[in-house]
Amino acid sequence: MRILGIDPGYAIVGYGVVDYNKNKFKMIDYGAVITDAGVPFEIRLEKVYDGICEVIDKYSPEAISIEQLFFTTNQKTAIMVAQARGVIILAAMKKQVPVYEYTPLQVKQSVVGYGKAVKNQVMEMTRVILNLEKIPKPDDAADALAIAICHGHSSCSALNNYMKLMGGKIR
Amino acid sequence: MRILGIDPGYAIVGYGVVDYNKNKFKMIDYGAVITDAGVPFEIRLEKVYDGICEVIDKYSPEAISIEQLFFTTNQKTAIMVAQARGVIILAAMKKQVPVYEYTPLQVKQSVVGYGKAVKNQVMEMTRVILNLEKIPKPDDAADALAIAICHGHSSCSALNNYMKLMGGKIR
Repeated sequence: MRILGIDPGYAIVGYGVVDYNKNKFKMIDYGAVITDAGVPFEIRLEKVYDGICEVIDKYSPEAISIEQLFFTTNQKTAIMVAQARGVIILAAMKKQVPVYEYTPLQVKQSVVGYGKAVKNQVMEMTRVILNLEKIPKPDDAADALAIAICHGHSSCSALNNYMKLMGGKIR
Repeated sequence: MRILGIDPGYAIVGYGVVDYNKNKFKMIDYGAVITDAGVPFEIRLEKVYDGICEVIDKYSPEAISIEQLFFTTNQKTAIMVAQARGVIILAAMKKQVPVYEYTPLQVKQSVVGYGKAVKNQVMEMTRVILNLEKIPKPDDAADALAIAICHGHSSCSALNNYMKLMGGKIR
């Protein structure tokens, strides 16, 4: 299964593409859609939408995994990130790829096995799981890969649970 | 000048279309794009986008006037409205209609002449300015008409200021 992980934002939208088969991950690519600070916000939103559409077209993911927004003290930033997240989800809908959402806690738990893991632990485990030499840059792309891994794990455990329920086995 | 006012939301997106010529407003239409509560959020976002695209296609506005989000104690709702606002702005961009943003304070000041006006005063003044028999329903559509009026007034005063600066006259 090919998974596109996305770390939502309006200045830097990190993305990471992984293949997940038979409990093994393979990193396909990662990067970021970047928008300039000096440009009107509506143009940045369009660039985020167009950029994510391009990434979807290029890699044909079967699932998109995106982090849920958590609430910060900076409401202005949160509102801007949320608007960008809206157009990212729309891109997934328009390209007919199902969207799955995970909280930061779920991502940490899934990648490190510990919900209170710090950022560096998550990045290091992402590197190990994907068998990479270095932690990917920018951080937003590394985060996106972690979010993709989270979906791989949880789609697998969802399938496991389903198969247990049905008395069957995972093939 | 034809103006489309939009009151952003994810459950009810109010819209109002007005023509503004020679300091006079004429109401063209109003309504709301409504999404069902029982439907996944990503589908609601797509419906908001498609609905606003349809409204733009139908009325060919020269400007879109949209309210800025203000911050509430309910951050969860604010984040959801912000995501919908993102796809509304994207619709304007994709249809190549310029977007103008106003704060609730600016809308009240522009419609009632008083920034601390209560909701009912804004609605009643909107009714009077547009020469309507009744206050439009739903409230979101009435709000959208007020937001459209705000842009009419401020584009006019922007033009006034520009002409004064240039030593000319408004034709």
